[in-house]
Amino acid sequence: MSPIITAFERSPDGGKGLARDMRVRWALEEVGQPYEVRLVSFSAMKEPAHLALHPFGQIPTYEEGDLALFETGAIILHIAERHPGLLPKDANARARAIMWMFAALNTVEPPILDLAIALIVERGEPWAKDRLPLVMDRVRTRLSELSHCLGDAEWLDGAFSAGDLMMVSVLLRLRPSGLLDEFPNLAAYVARGEARPAYERAFAAQRAVFTVSSVG
Amino acid sequence: MSPIITAFERSPDGGKGLARDMRVRWALEEVGQPYEVRLVSFSAMKEPAHLALHPFGQIPTYEEGDLALFETGAIILHIAERHPGLLPKDANARARAIMWMFAALNTVEPPILDLAIALIVERGEPWAKDRLPLVMDRVRTRLSELSHCLGDAEWLDGAFSAGDLMMVSVLLRLRPSGLLDEFPNLAAYVARGEARPAYERAFAAQRAVFTVSSVG
Repeated sequence: MSPIITAFERSPDGGKGLARDMRVRWALEEVGQPYEVRLVSFSAMKEPAHLALHPFGQIPTYEEGDLALFETGAIILHIAERHPGLLPKDANARARAIMWMFAALNTVEPPILDLAIALIVERGEPWAKDRLPLVMDRVRTRLSELSHCLGDAEWLDGAFSAGDLMMVSVLLRLRPSGLLDEFPNLAAYVARGEARPAYERAFAAQRAVFTVSSVG
Repeated sequence: MSPIITAFERSPDGGKGLARDMRVRWALEEVGQPYEVRLVSFSAMKEPAHLALHPFGQIPTYEEGDLALFETGAIILHIAERHPGLLPKDANARARAIMWMFAALNTVEPPILDLAIALIVERGEPWAKDRLPLVMDRVRTRLSELSHCLGDAEWLDGAFSAGDLMMVSVLLRLRPSGLLDEFPNLAAYVARGEARPAYERAFAAQRAVFTVSSVG
């Protein structure tokens, strides 16, 4: 039986692949695992049935038999542990791939989330314009460190792994800001991720939801 | 050979146990694994030798034979996978414990980090006072959801796990703000974490560093 994931009925990004179900779709495509999708409306996300699956009222969730998970990091690690293709076999290399998943989510993503909040949620606040350069500089600091670490390597640590999948997904959110293009090796790294056939299949699948739902 | 972790030579919190080495110390104490500590100054954290271990120039790091890790989440998961005591044996319960680690680091901690930035880094900015209520409300939203999910349970999912270790560590950073006390079941949950003998040993160890270094 295929796992079931949840995704936005109408993604706020209009199908640009920035919603977090994209990360799970990509992982499932990398390992060749078919899946089903249940679309959830914004109001349903805050209702008891969905909150029982995801206490923070977000997407995606992951259901597979008796197991129900939320948190993209946990879902992708679960997939990566059960199917070959996303984690190296060598124990130390495996630990480092998982390290990059955590680095993406806990070190690189927080200032990027901050930037999204500054640009969207706090856009109309009186401090928005004066505060933005500070928020952007915090993102630049992390990008500069990551850029130095990646150098001219193809992926963060040897072969493509769940760590790269997560880091590329996190960095993708920066594209509209122009910040990514300040670091050409990171922009190329993200482009390599997007060029993977599994990414392309996942992107097309999330895009199709939007195309269909925007017709209705 | 014992693993070696790094910690601040002079922790900015003055030994209150809020630096991230505390999380790793706590995990090592829970599983009964001895460890060594190498203290790092703020200037050394940004030098090539430390950046080779931690590309974002932070603490803690973890060295064990040929393996070098950064990111608290990855270090604690590595410890939990190799020693009994931090992850359940049942596969689904294990996946959920890891889910709570990610939830602590990627869903609950980001607004708490934001609050720390608002209170410390941006304290002197002209918008500081007007913006603070928004930042606090974002933390309250997460705490309210977490409080509802925890209910009157002792831990997040059955027995104490690495997920609780991480969630308690993240919530502890809120104590000075008073926000934690708005959710009595979360305050009691954090107090249960702090009352664990392993927590107490780890706390004493990080405190001893500060006591010694502040004499010199």
